[in-house]
Amino acid sequence: MIRGVLLDLAGVVYEGDHVLPGAVEAVHRLHAASLPIRFVTNTTTKTKTALLSRLAGLGLEITNEELFTPGQAARAWLDANDASPHLLVHPNLESEFADIPSRPNRAIVVGDAGQGFSFDHMNRAFRALIDGAAFLALAKNRTFMDDDGKLSLDAGAFVTALEYSSQKNAIVLGKPSPDFFHAALSSMGATPDSTVMVGDDAESDVAGALKAGIAQAILVRTGKYRDGDEHRFDPPPTHVARDLAEAASWILDNKEAS
Amino acid sequence: MIRGVLLDLAGVVYEGDHVLPGAVEAVHRLHAASLPIRFVTNTTTKTKTALLSRLAGLGLEITNEELFTPGQAARAWLDANDASPHLLVHPNLESEFADIPSRPNRAIVVGDAGQGFSFDHMNRAFRALIDGAAFLALAKNRTFMDDDGKLSLDAGAFVTALEYSSQKNAIVLGKPSPDFFHAALSSMGATPDSTVMVGDDAESDVAGALKAGIAQAILVRTGKYRDGDEHRFDPPPTHVARDLAEAASWILDNKEAS
Repeated sequence: MIRGVLLDLAGVVYEGDHVLPGAVEAVHRLHAASLPIRFVTNTTTKTKTALLSRLAGLGLEITNEELFTPGQAARAWLDANDASPHLLVHPNLESEFADIPSRPNRAIVVGDAGQGFSFDHMNRAFRALIDGAAFLALAKNRTFMDDDGKLSLDAGAFVTALEYSSQKNAIVLGKPSPDFFHAALSSMGATPDSTVMVGDDAESDVAGALKAGIAQAILVRTGKYRDGDEHRFDPPPTHVARDLAEAASWILDNKEAS
Repeated sequence: MIRGVLLDLAGVVYEGDHVLPGAVEAVHRLHAASLPIRFVTNTTTKTKTALLSRLAGLGLEITNEELFTPGQAARAWLDANDASPHLLVHPNLESEFADIPSRPNRAIVVGDAGQGFSFDHMNRAFRALIDGAAFLALAKNRTFMDDDGKLSLDAGAFVTALEYSSQKNAIVLGKPSPDFFHAALSSMGATPDSTVMVGDDAESDVAGALKAGIAQAILVRTGKYRDGDEHRFDPPPTHVARDLAEAASWILDNKEAS
């Protein structure tokens, strides 16, 4: 029986600059049923504040504590490891790291830098790595659904490039990192065995959540979903839904009686 | 007993724009001993013609047939597979593919594009791949010794990035592809059991040659060599030499009596 819900955002709730049909109403129904929700997103092109205000503009009112981002996980890692960042992230995200003082250790932080993934920027990050910097990746997604409706290269491509040449493995802070899923769960007092994850990425959202021990994972056929994704990764989704509206109905049908 | 010699170029014979001490003289000694030689290079920033004339300018006179490049291997693959190329290579190499007519199949060709590895170029290559293009890599080296004396990202980083996001494996046409080594051997009538490879890249040149069945592989401590490289990859080099001059002396000591 379901007692907690993890939802992906891009490709599930919104896509590009519009909300997906039925998504806002689906979140309202989950809220109305008093189910605790955490939005776990690998979106690294906006600060947490900017993301919350964008969602509000789309009609989705969620609280600061309901939103989990890799940016906040990276800040926590840098604080815990007395490290200052060498950033290879989207310009919008730089302000999230702007007030960190100079510290003895160094870590490169790679997010979805987009056009920032030039050869020179990549090479500077590579040289920092072989000079001893730690290696944080805000996400390792392979692709995302771009504004033109086609798949584009996501940060994972460039994280993998740096891993290959430096022969160092990145610490991945977003999905599908089990630590990231577990931090979201414990913040709402939920346990993996009574939680469901909903996402459009069969690998990072769905297989990632199931590998982290989460009992149920619903793959929605929106966003970056492509035919056959339900069979492409292991473990496969426990359920498949047309969209978030259909996923929410399944969740409400399987909610623990209160 | 040695009957044929494979030599890497960058980091063994020359580095940046200067020839390494004793290297030209070492090649002369091998030539004088009538040992067949093939220069197997993953350098993909120059056409074969430009590379030969550059080597001549450095005092190294070698013939067209002594030089093996991934560019010529790619041309041969495109011809054999009735494919036209989508290039992500160094601008200098584009002319090597300029006269290929329009053909029914398509293949992306990734070389050391340097500054050409922008996000947009990478994303266009990625989209061609998921639209069904074949995937040729001129090389998959992790790093190269740059003009400023520091290691920089080599084409392998960007090949790996595209492999990760497209979930397609590249056909690697340069070292350490066994096919590439074998083509060089057969062009000089040599067999793997009586051939030696000399290189500064413990992985691609040395372990690559040994994995391709070549009997002997000498790692030289010039070019991109870094302390500990003799133990970093499997199989390890059969011999280690200070430079090409010392490697040539070993080869001449172990040459089959004529």
